[in-house]
Amino acid sequence: MDDKSINSTNLLSTLQLPEGLKELSYKELETVAAEIRQLLISTLAKTGGHLAPNLGVVELTLALHRVFNSPQDKIIWDVGHQSYVHKLLTGRLQRFSTLRQFGGISGFPRPEESEHDIFATGHSSTSISAAVGLAKARDLSGEDHKIIAVIGDGSMTGGMAFEALNHAGHLNLDLMVVLNDNEMSISPNVGALSAYLSRVRMNPAVNRLKEEIEHLIQGIPGVGEMTVRYLEKLKDSLKYLVIPGILFEELGFSYFGPVDGHNIRQLVQVFRDAAERSGPVLIHVLTKKGKGFLPAEEDPLKYHGIPGFELPGGHLRERSGPPTYTQVFGETLVELAREDRRVVAITAAMLEGTGLVKFARAFPERFFDVGIAEQHAVTMAAGLARGGKKPVVAIYSSFLQRAYDQILHDVCLQNLPVVFALDRAGVVGEDGPTHHGVFDLAYLRSIPGITIMAPKDENELREMLRLALAMEKPVAIRYPRGQGQGDKQLLEPVVPGRAEVLRGGEQAAVFALGPLAAEAEKAARRLSRMGISCAVINARFVKPLDRETILHWARRVPHLVTVEDHNLTGGFGSAVLELLAEEGVRGTRVTRMGYPDRFVEFGPAQKLRALYGLNEEGICRTVTGHLLPVADAGSSR
Amino acid sequence: MDDKSINSTNLLSTLQLPEGLKELSYKELETVAAEIRQLLISTLAKTGGHLAPNLGVVELTLALHRVFNSPQDKIIWDVGHQSYVHKLLTGRLQRFSTLRQFGGISGFPRPEESEHDIFATGHSSTSISAAVGLAKARDLSGEDHKIIAVIGDGSMTGGMAFEALNHAGHLNLDLMVVLNDNEMSISPNVGALSAYLSRVRMNPAVNRLKEEIEHLIQGIPGVGEMTVRYLEKLKDSLKYLVIPGILFEELGFSYFGPVDGHNIRQLVQVFRDAAERSGPVLIHVLTKKGKGFLPAEEDPLKYHGIPGFELPGGHLRERSGPPTYTQVFGETLVELAREDRRVVAITAAMLEGTGLVKFARAFPERFFDVGIAEQHAVTMAAGLARGGKKPVVAIYSSFLQRAYDQILHDVCLQNLPVVFALDRAGVVGEDGPTHHGVFDLAYLRSIPGITIMAPKDENELREMLRLALAMEKPVAIRYPRGQGQGDKQLLEPVVPGRAEVLRGGEQAAVFALGPLAAEAEKAARRLSRMGISCAVINARFVKPLDRETILHWARRVPHLVTVEDHNLTGGFGSAVLELLAEEGVRGTRVTRMGYPDRFVEFGPAQKLRALYGLNEEGICRTVTGHLLPVADAGSSR
Repeated sequence: MDDKSINSTNLLSTLQLPEGLKELSYKELETVAAEIRQLLISTLAKTGGHLAPNLGVVELTLALHRVFNSPQDKIIWDVGHQSYVHKLLTGRLQRFSTLRQFGGISGFPRPEESEHDIFATGHSSTSISAAVGLAKARDLSGEDHKIIAVIGDGSMTGGMAFEALNHAGHLNLDLMVVLNDNEMSISPNVGALSAYLSRVRMNPAVNRLKEEIEHLIQGIPGVGEMTVRYLEKLKDSLKYLVIPGILFEELGFSYFGPVDGHNIRQLVQVFRDAAERSGPVLIHVLTKKGKGFLPAEEDPLKYHGIPGFELPGGHLRERSGPPTYTQVFGETLVELAREDRRVVAITAAMLEGTGLVKFARAFPERFFDVGIAEQHAVTMAAGLARGGKKPVVAIYSSFLQRAYDQILHDVCLQNLPVVFALDRAGVVGEDGPTHHGVFDLAYLRSIPGITIMAPKDENELREMLRLALAMEKPVAIRYPRGQGQGDKQLLEPVVPGRAEVLRGGEQAAVFALGPLAAEAEKAARRLSRMGISCAVINARFVKPLDRETILHWARRVPHLVTVEDHNLTGGFGSAVLELLAEEGVRGTRVTRMGYPDRFVEFGPAQKLRALYGLNEEGICRTVTGHLLPVADAGSSR
Repeated sequence: MDDKSINSTNLLSTLQLPEGLKELSYKELETVAAEIRQLLISTLAKTGGHLAPNLGVVELTLALHRVFNSPQDKIIWDVGHQSYVHKLLTGRLQRFSTLRQFGGISGFPRPEESEHDIFATGHSSTSISAAVGLAKARDLSGEDHKIIAVIGDGSMTGGMAFEALNHAGHLNLDLMVVLNDNEMSISPNVGALSAYLSRVRMNPAVNRLKEEIEHLIQGIPGVGEMTVRYLEKLKDSLKYLVIPGILFEELGFSYFGPVDGHNIRQLVQVFRDAAERSGPVLIHVLTKKGKGFLPAEEDPLKYHGIPGFELPGGHLRERSGPPTYTQVFGETLVELAREDRRVVAITAAMLEGTGLVKFARAFPERFFDVGIAEQHAVTMAAGLARGGKKPVVAIYSSFLQRAYDQILHDVCLQNLPVVFALDRAGVVGEDGPTHHGVFDLAYLRSIPGITIMAPKDENELREMLRLALAMEKPVAIRYPRGQGQGDKQLLEPVVPGRAEVLRGGEQAAVFALGPLAAEAEKAARRLSRMGISCAVINARFVKPLDRETILHWARRVPHLVTVEDHNLTGGFGSAVLELLAEEGVRGTRVTRMGYPDRFVEFGPAQKLRALYGLNEEGICRTVTGHLLPVADAGSSR
């Protein structure tokens, strides 16, 4: 399906959206649902993106826009990767083919993109807190509209969702939480809450029981006064039987459901009923991830976030070439765990994403998926370390931001041997600013006692992981999304706090972090052809710095360049500046290359890096003195 | 009571602790409880500390050590400010008079202090996560001991406690959670969970009901098969009536209680019963904060954490002199809120600590205490801002670490006008490393779009707060614990991104942040008497930097000194280095003064600052070239 066919042949394109949904028959709504599914499948086959989550919420989203009046009524999409249908219904139908493309529409809600995107999301479990704030703002201003947070059962395991439920119940605010229960977050769900929701789901007969039992009690002959009183108590207790959402009721919410999330008529009815109830309301909606596209229904995990695929079969576009850092991490950890029984692994709902599938299969007892609960993941790791284990916590760089305090307060303050594997460090590409891992060096570097490394290639990642597990103290290893360099040989063993000189030179020295070392080497070769002699050093350690090597080159060459796939403020380059200031080295010019002091957009990672000069060409220009305007300016503005 | 009397006249001092507790009669245990209370009161009258929380857990702690065998069995104290009794019973009786004194014993659990302090705490809601990790480590190692997390009902409102409960229930781990329910965290508790616990407390008869109702049902004559089936269902549902801890039961915990937390015999019994149960267990203990000391019982809030007091009446030691920054913040916010109805205030269970009592009284509708839930506090503020309000989030510097991701992802990524009031920035004194606010500049500075200010005195704080509310974007203001400078006059209006030159000079320029500007001025006057001409600049802004002023002085004087009550790595001084590198300023020597790259100890704040040269004398020494070895070394080691 191309853009032309969207515009001409279907019902969706004829509607005034979102208002037009209100006038359709349920049959027509189902037609629209089918059209949307087609559009999602055909578009994402090209662009990639979050397929299964969006296929699961087609009817849910239609029903919401049927009942409520966005943007007066505010719909907040938790995580936001399931907001594509919402985008299609709120002015982004024509541009939908630009989804996740550089300069196109975002894969997440963005207020700057539409007034219907009331709150930006990307990380999990924020929607109820945002809803509480919006609801209070509304009430203080004497306004009257609905606030709806749509949150998955996976996101519910995040602690801040609980904090918000607890507070909303206390305030008795008029707000609605739509619990989109598809029995999985990204990986299948874990946790007692999940088991609880399963029990609720398994109990469809429970509603009918109520009246029958009440009737029964009334029919018992000859009950004395005491008995009557007991029976009254008993009747009170029936609410526990009748209301499957007791957990939410206890927190002050009125519970509706469970309701079939693919039945638009039922959804519309329950939303209307719920909208009339004052105080906080939770509507429990059962959906199927991947609904309507067989390959995704059968393997929703595989089709959660995808690179693009073939139609009609759904065969995923495959990468060729060297393994990813993620794969190398996962495989190496299995090897190391075979050698040392103390090694255990923790993920926060990212079993596949962090490459731990093999580990989980090889060592099920030593593997922990804690749900979307990064804080707990880190402090649990601290507990495991205190108990004599060697925990490896594999969390994406940007998600680990959630556990900053736990890293500092529970791990580093006690100097516990926890290894943090920060996948997705640096720009991640199409997921954009909520997911770019460009702050980790800044937030980790100031924590006393932590060691921070970055491998220049996948072989170094192996060695660094081995080293980290041997160090008996807190260690973070950051590595990027995507494929490794394909090199098989480790030139120089990894020694704590030591950089690796890749190439000598006289006129400049480039200290590059991570795989950007390869770009620096390419740049140096090109410069060499131009007659410019440039040293390249693979930094390896951000903390502790290799003071000796840095000071050596700072005193030897007139121009030091640092290169990092990270924000310039407080990163690796700043660490080098701190060192030089401490040592009183003043003659050397230092140019730091990285991202300036603003949020980096979405688009292909390589393109983003190029945009900020983080490639061969940019490094060449910097060394030759033709500084990129964006790369070295504005970091403190 | 002095140390001598402890050693001679009482039962406590004759015991082999903690094992000796096991051989005492309950009457003797009560005697020990009374002695401990006396010791707590007499010691804290001198040292200050957390009085009311510890008076509340005397019997609870005795019962724990009576039943369990520390350190084989592991007791984790959530927050840890209630661990004094535990410390008295585990080898720290003789040194108890050094509590919270420089070089003495800590007011929080510290593994380096005793093997009985299995896990360091300070921030809230970490204990169950640590217990999960320790329990898993135990099971993997095939060991056999008990793991007990003691957590207050206030700490239960922290999301990570929920994450851990959810995971523990899922794993079905053998561990015990002792819920110390005193109906308050530090301020009286908020939240639906608190209301839920109240309902549980109010229902003491509920246990007896169970058998009576079961008996009743069995006695009903002539029930048919259908009815029997219904009645079986009904009996199942009785557990909801019978078990007051349904919320915890639903998460997979066995619930015991509620039990009187001041009845040692009952506590011992319930701990023994609970210890025999496999799987996760929650024991709900009702205690009274301040128990046994009338002034503290009557006003537990006032006696939560105290500076020292008179005996016998408990009259708190009073400060004389100028108001604290906290007070000035609170009063100013009330003024500003009168002028602008959009101003709202949020605290995370720190109503008094953050100075918001007057605000809460003046504008109850516009004040929100969200419980110990910093993450929710910040994202709720983002929601309020999106809804057109001007939220001020008042959270201590070190506690705001919990909401780092929310500041970045929910506030700054959307450029929402939320004002963060970071009280307790810099070293806080006796509470020590878990509470020192010496990382905020590092973790905030790398976030794009945030403005960061620090007032040199309380008048500047007023002006900065006014400015922040007018700026319509994310702003953080950091200010220290304790009293202001007592100045009444604001010399120069606060202009965004502009520093204030306090004093000219030729040989050096000191850029001081916050109240350290006063120390720098004193130093400059002393230097002047020595014939050294030193400029002093009140930096005011850490972000955006006053580029113009910094560059001006960097080009004018040979030696630039930065002074901050903050860790040296990634702080204000690093921002200055980044600017100078960007601008290619290389001739100037820059010395950064602040804390080196390790956790700062506990002790009087002034003493700690002096120790690291952050006072008149230290600045003098730095400018005159006699650098302090600790102040400018090792920040990247």
